[in-house]
Amino acid sequence: METLTSPQQQSSGPITRGCQWFKALPNKFCDKTMEIVRKTKKLGQDDPRRIVHSLKVGLALTLVSLFYYFKPLYDGFGDSAMWAVLTVVVVLEFSVGATLGKGFNRMLATFVAGGLGVGAHCLATLAGRKGEPILIATFVFIIAVIMTFMRFFPKMKARYDYGLLIFILTFCLVSVSGYRDDQVLKMAHERFSTILVGSCASLIVCICVCPVWIGEDLHNSVVTNMEKLGNFFQAFGDEYFEVSEEHDQSSENNKSYLQGYRSVLTSKSSEETMANFARWEPGHGPFGYRHPWKMYLKIGNLTRDCAYKVEALNNYLNCKIQTPVEIRGKIQGQCKRVSLECSRALKEMASTFRKMVRTRSAIVHIDSSKEAAEELKTLLRTNLWEEADLLEIIPAASVASLLLEIIECIEKISEAVNELAKAAAFRNGNATVLPEQPDSIHQGEAQNDSNTAMPVPHVAIIVAE
Amino acid sequence: METLTSPQQQSSGPITRGCQWFKALPNKFCDKTMEIVRKTKKLGQDDPRRIVHSLKVGLALTLVSLFYYFKPLYDGFGDSAMWAVLTVVVVLEFSVGATLGKGFNRMLATFVAGGLGVGAHCLATLAGRKGEPILIATFVFIIAVIMTFMRFFPKMKARYDYGLLIFILTFCLVSVSGYRDDQVLKMAHERFSTILVGSCASLIVCICVCPVWIGEDLHNSVVTNMEKLGNFFQAFGDEYFEVSEEHDQSSENNKSYLQGYRSVLTSKSSEETMANFARWEPGHGPFGYRHPWKMYLKIGNLTRDCAYKVEALNNYLNCKIQTPVEIRGKIQGQCKRVSLECSRALKEMASTFRKMVRTRSAIVHIDSSKEAAEELKTLLRTNLWEEADLLEIIPAASVASLLLEIIECIEKISEAVNELAKAAAFRNGNATVLPEQPDSIHQGEAQNDSNTAMPVPHVAIIVAE
Repeated sequence: METLTSPQQQSSGPITRGCQWFKALPNKFCDKTMEIVRKTKKLGQDDPRRIVHSLKVGLALTLVSLFYYFKPLYDGFGDSAMWAVLTVVVVLEFSVGATLGKGFNRMLATFVAGGLGVGAHCLATLAGRKGEPILIATFVFIIAVIMTFMRFFPKMKARYDYGLLIFILTFCLVSVSGYRDDQVLKMAHERFSTILVGSCASLIVCICVCPVWIGEDLHNSVVTNMEKLGNFFQAFGDEYFEVSEEHDQSSENNKSYLQGYRSVLTSKSSEETMANFARWEPGHGPFGYRHPWKMYLKIGNLTRDCAYKVEALNNYLNCKIQTPVEIRGKIQGQCKRVSLECSRALKEMASTFRKMVRTRSAIVHIDSSKEAAEELKTLLRTNLWEEADLLEIIPAASVASLLLEIIECIEKISEAVNELAKAAAFRNGNATVLPEQPDSIHQGEAQNDSNTAMPVPHVAIIVAE
Repeated sequence: METLTSPQQQSSGPITRGCQWFKALPNKFCDKTMEIVRKTKKLGQDDPRRIVHSLKVGLALTLVSLFYYFKPLYDGFGDSAMWAVLTVVVVLEFSVGATLGKGFNRMLATFVAGGLGVGAHCLATLAGRKGEPILIATFVFIIAVIMTFMRFFPKMKARYDYGLLIFILTFCLVSVSGYRDDQVLKMAHERFSTILVGSCASLIVCICVCPVWIGEDLHNSVVTNMEKLGNFFQAFGDEYFEVSEEHDQSSENNKSYLQGYRSVLTSKSSEETMANFARWEPGHGPFGYRHPWKMYLKIGNLTRDCAYKVEALNNYLNCKIQTPVEIRGKIQGQCKRVSLECSRALKEMASTFRKMVRTRSAIVHIDSSKEAAEELKTLLRTNLWEEADLLEIIPAASVASLLLEIIECIEKISEAVNELAKAAAFRNGNATVLPEQPDSIHQGEAQNDSNTAMPVPHVAIIVAE
């Protein structure tokens, strides 16, 4: 925009204008630099693992480039050592799961496609010097078409997309270059071994230096989403029923609590990506081998269903037609109690889930919210608002009805969390409390194996589903 | 599971068991094969462009591998010709936008990083044979750390993620291999020219053979989402108010209409990806250069906001506590009319938007739904349900209140669609109708430039925002 000429600028000479532009340049440059520095600092502070990851990539690359500097190592691989460097750049990802998935895909695909490429080359040489290119080109075409189409299968895409790509790549490289270079087998072998070295270097650096486990991220993300809903319910009661009294003071505090749930609405795709990567990860820390990652998606979906209802609740906070405060006051106590108990249930669940403790302590709050819900229902039945305008009653009544539905949602989340806790053999938090509440099938089963620390059969069955 | 031994199997000899297993094998193999064939057929039928894309990849690879077969071409590039093959495999994506983005990223990054790598090599040779590896390793480390961290910036990630990766790759390749190979400049040049050839081959095949424009997909996806909501509203009135009368017959037809909106809820990330790719695409067909793709995201967000409310409406279809049919009957006419008019408005908008026609014909339906809404409000004010139980009234009342809110949502969508139609200079569909309804600022402006077919300044201004 600075290069456009305004009427004033046109009156001054081009040299003056140029000088002005040049004078402003250092300032602009400074501003821009400061902004970049600020953003960089924020990115690093938000998640310091990003800085660590960048250093890890530098470290891995420097390590692998040693192949070039040390003569004994270089003599072993020759120019192909470059493939090791290339592999590190491409394979080393932020999380262990992604790196393992890519590394495994790359190694397996190179191995299989390399072998197939050598086979295709041998077969093609039988056709003579003239027939060879035609035969090879046909093979390349067929393999490329089949593998590219396979990448559209959703299951293949989720786990083996990169492998299929590398398969096409390696098959082409090996079979096509066989036309000019007779040492195809040597080439395929070199390519595979350098990729093996590169992948292993990436994996070692990724796992040994401050590993980022994506499974842990998924676990935390699911827990945090529950907490966000919990925060909403904690703030909602006060915000809705005291909206006219002290609007400005309380809303400042509650605003962030009330808006936190919005990110839950759109968290589906990121959770699915994380679950796909997490399945590549070996057992680590509290997460055993074959940890039921798929069940996290179920909890995530139920949390999102609850978030959709929260979105509806949130609309009533900013509704044009509001129920008069005196009418709202009549259901205030029960509604606030339901909201608070829902908040406590979610936060309790989130807190024990985060620590990977198997407990049904949240059920106390769910039961308590159900009690309040019954009171609320009775209150609604007593027609205590007979003289009021129905149009004005609707918002408050809808809020009440939504709160009743949300209890069911939270109960479903609680059941899913318990299922996961059982399948993943979380350590038991309240074995003494369990026998007191034998009101569900799951609890009945939970009682039976509350003594066994690792109910492995359960894990196997549920994962097999 | 087949290898597990059941008690019966244990009684028979291992040979018998082996025979049984072998006998079952062909059947199992047939079943599996049939399933794969069925799935493949479905994938191809759902989107025949997938088959075309697979054939395109095969074609492009076969074309590029010609470099190896023809001596004059091979002499020009030598073994580096492999990089062209590699580039085609990696760059050729399903859509033109993705291919252009990747190709551009790869070419630019290779060019810049290749130059920088040569520079780094020259600088390092000044340090002597012993100092060179240390200096190069330092450079590689610094570049890798900086570029990897830059990939975390959201804006960089959206557009230049692949470029940053290739930057690290090329810089490493060129600077490191300079230690063993003195012809660094030649190598960098070869690498760049082969990548240029590979990228161009991919682009030519991608654009010239049945191109898939991701911008068109985004356009269609946004339109389809509107239609899905329209379908819901079309079916909702009948389903909710006649639920008890002819539940089984009508629900079969309406079921798919009523469930279609669910995919809208989670469409955010795919729309964002499409918009990112679409920005790489040149003008094509009705989509001009600098088509305002960002505004599609705005419409998408508003449609999703509406879908959240639809989710709330849908809950009332399967609510446990239902308002008795006779009470529902009192607001049936108005609610059905609002729902139908909303459906018509959405479908009208979707239909003209799909054809890229600029018209405000949907406003007739919005106005008509507003009229019905006013009637509904009056009806709700008359307290015509005084004797009924409030708890039973709430569901129907909430449905009515949600329908009122949805009108506002649809109005917002309509405004966003008009904004886009103006910015993208859709052709005018009802210039004669416009002057009759000068009730908004946008319409006032629309009148002024209704004669100009291409109001380019608008495009520029809105894109610059």
